[in-house]
Amino acid sequence: METNGLASLLVTDLLNIRYLTGFTGSNAALLVSAQDSPVNEDHTVVCTDGRYVTQVAEQVPDLRAVIDRGSAAYLLRSDAAPRAERVGFESHVVTVDQHLSWTRIDDSLNLVRSPGLVEELRMVKDEHEIALLREACRAADAAFAQLIERGSIRAGRTELAVARELEAAMIEHGADGISFETIVATGSNSAVPHHRPTAAVLAHGDFVKFDFGALVGGYHSDMTRTVVIGAASDWQKDLYELVLRSQTAGREALAPGVETASVDAAARSVITAAGFGEFFLHGLGHGVGLEIHEAPGIAKSSTGTLQCGAAVTVEPGVYFSGRGGVRIEDTLIVRDNGPELLTMTSKELTFV
Amino acid sequence: METNGLASLLVTDLLNIRYLTGFTGSNAALLVSAQDSPVNEDHTVVCTDGRYVTQVAEQVPDLRAVIDRGSAAYLLRSDAAPRAERVGFESHVVTVDQHLSWTRIDDSLNLVRSPGLVEELRMVKDEHEIALLREACRAADAAFAQLIERGSIRAGRTELAVARELEAAMIEHGADGISFETIVATGSNSAVPHHRPTAAVLAHGDFVKFDFGALVGGYHSDMTRTVVIGAASDWQKDLYELVLRSQTAGREALAPGVETASVDAAARSVITAAGFGEFFLHGLGHGVGLEIHEAPGIAKSSTGTLQCGAAVTVEPGVYFSGRGGVRIEDTLIVRDNGPELLTMTSKELTFV
Repeated sequence: METNGLASLLVTDLLNIRYLTGFTGSNAALLVSAQDSPVNEDHTVVCTDGRYVTQVAEQVPDLRAVIDRGSAAYLLRSDAAPRAERVGFESHVVTVDQHLSWTRIDDSLNLVRSPGLVEELRMVKDEHEIALLREACRAADAAFAQLIERGSIRAGRTELAVARELEAAMIEHGADGISFETIVATGSNSAVPHHRPTAAVLAHGDFVKFDFGALVGGYHSDMTRTVVIGAASDWQKDLYELVLRSQTAGREALAPGVETASVDAAARSVITAAGFGEFFLHGLGHGVGLEIHEAPGIAKSSTGTLQCGAAVTVEPGVYFSGRGGVRIEDTLIVRDNGPELLTMTSKELTFV
Repeated sequence: METNGLASLLVTDLLNIRYLTGFTGSNAALLVSAQDSPVNEDHTVVCTDGRYVTQVAEQVPDLRAVIDRGSAAYLLRSDAAPRAERVGFESHVVTVDQHLSWTRIDDSLNLVRSPGLVEELRMVKDEHEIALLREACRAADAAFAQLIERGSIRAGRTELAVARELEAAMIEHGADGISFETIVATGSNSAVPHHRPTAAVLAHGDFVKFDFGALVGGYHSDMTRTVVIGAASDWQKDLYELVLRSQTAGREALAPGVETASVDAAARSVITAAGFGEFFLHGLGHGVGLEIHEAPGIAKSSTGTLQCGAAVTVEPGVYFSGRGGVRIEDTLIVRDNGPELLTMTSKELTFV
């Protein structure tokens, strides 16, 4: 805020509010004052509506809270918002209509576009957040192991049945919910990067691609594994080995200070060198935390560098349309002494 | 679009794109041309990225599709976007930053704020959508019935354990997922309208409030029931009876052409007359469909009228902080001959 010359920052993104205050309600605005200090905290104020009177008092005992359905507009109208001085707002999430209505409140309000300030903080996870991510990854690992042990991934079952069992297993193993719509893609469907499970039946010799995650305390895990039913043909073994080499190169490139684009390049060059660059259709990875996709992006066109404590995925994939595809994905923490792997499920080619 | 003098409408809200085209990818933009007619459909174009090449071809076979990561910006740059003529955009979802970047593309682009046009269409559900809502409500009903039959709602269990069992049961009964974070709130927690389940233990004499829903084919169900463990005291019976009378009045007020504010009033007046108006902390209900909360809102300050085919909730609640609360909620379809009830679980005060 100091760098940007802001007297206050109006935070309206609910996950950013959750991150800064712990409040999890579905309607809120937070006006952070640059004047706050450890001995003078009452300039910062959170506003929510009548449904959350009790919850806001419990979750945010240390901040001034006001109850009004108007949330952001109410705070801007109130004397909590400084006049004439620069008040930042989250222009990357605030809509054109919201902004227009705010500019009509008071001519002396000086609203300044201030995108991504909280997201910048959120990129680096503290150990409490990492513990939640670890727990989410553990639930996903345990659920997948349970399906393998039970023989649940087998010829004759549908993608949908396997997906639902995997989701129920994550909840059994302590997840609060699922992280995103589970992908189970068998045979030629495995060549669709973001396939949604259907009534398609798993068959002998199929690649089956799983992309799934668990949610724990608001934090998302993200993992992809591709297995083969029964026995693999040569092209499947070759393709799997190639994607695994690429994924290993990507993981090994993770370090504080490294440019995200060069992490993508480390993994992509393995696939390009094998002549399959055109079949790697997406970026290498993304940040993960309170959102399943958050900063930093790891792609060809990404800008910026990795910071110590960033939580990211590494997920190269090669897809042969109409035939089959392989993606292998882990969630990891960028650390000084090499990345910490959170998704522990084996990446050896697994036959089920 | 004709009313608003638009040559084209740029749709960027993903649920609106899903509604109009059936495409379910996580990155897309759709430019709808007013010139399209049944014999000339190729002016309208959808844009998504490389992950969805196969999916967009399958889900949207009848529209021109282009693959570019830029989605909306790409369409505005291309000759698909008319110059000089009015091009509407969804100013209620487009961010200040997105809009700013679009205005820099080309001086001859004439971008016009056009909020809520697709949401207006989405308010009225067709029979296919209603069938999905019915199926979602059925899964929730069946799951709740299973918990009651199994004796799963009993003294000694935690809110969290019961919530997770309810969620797993919805999936068992055919849900694709859960509709929103399940609320299970026991004892004094039932007085928190949007309580999140904790390790709090259910006890004899507690109100236990359940607010939950199932997701089927992208459509959300929403139901609240409040039960009592063992036996109810007089204040609990009186409170329950009051909220049920209010909820009945609200349901009976649903009809095409009725003002949404007057539906809220019909239910609220019952509670106000009993002297508890100040403990009914929220609006009466909301539309439900591809989103758990969508138009129309049903609250004191709502504007507009109900249309035949609208899917709405009716959910009055009275909350005595520190003591307990009751909310009763159904999902219903507004019909000419009286509302169609989709959530079939009994609203008799249930002892478990």
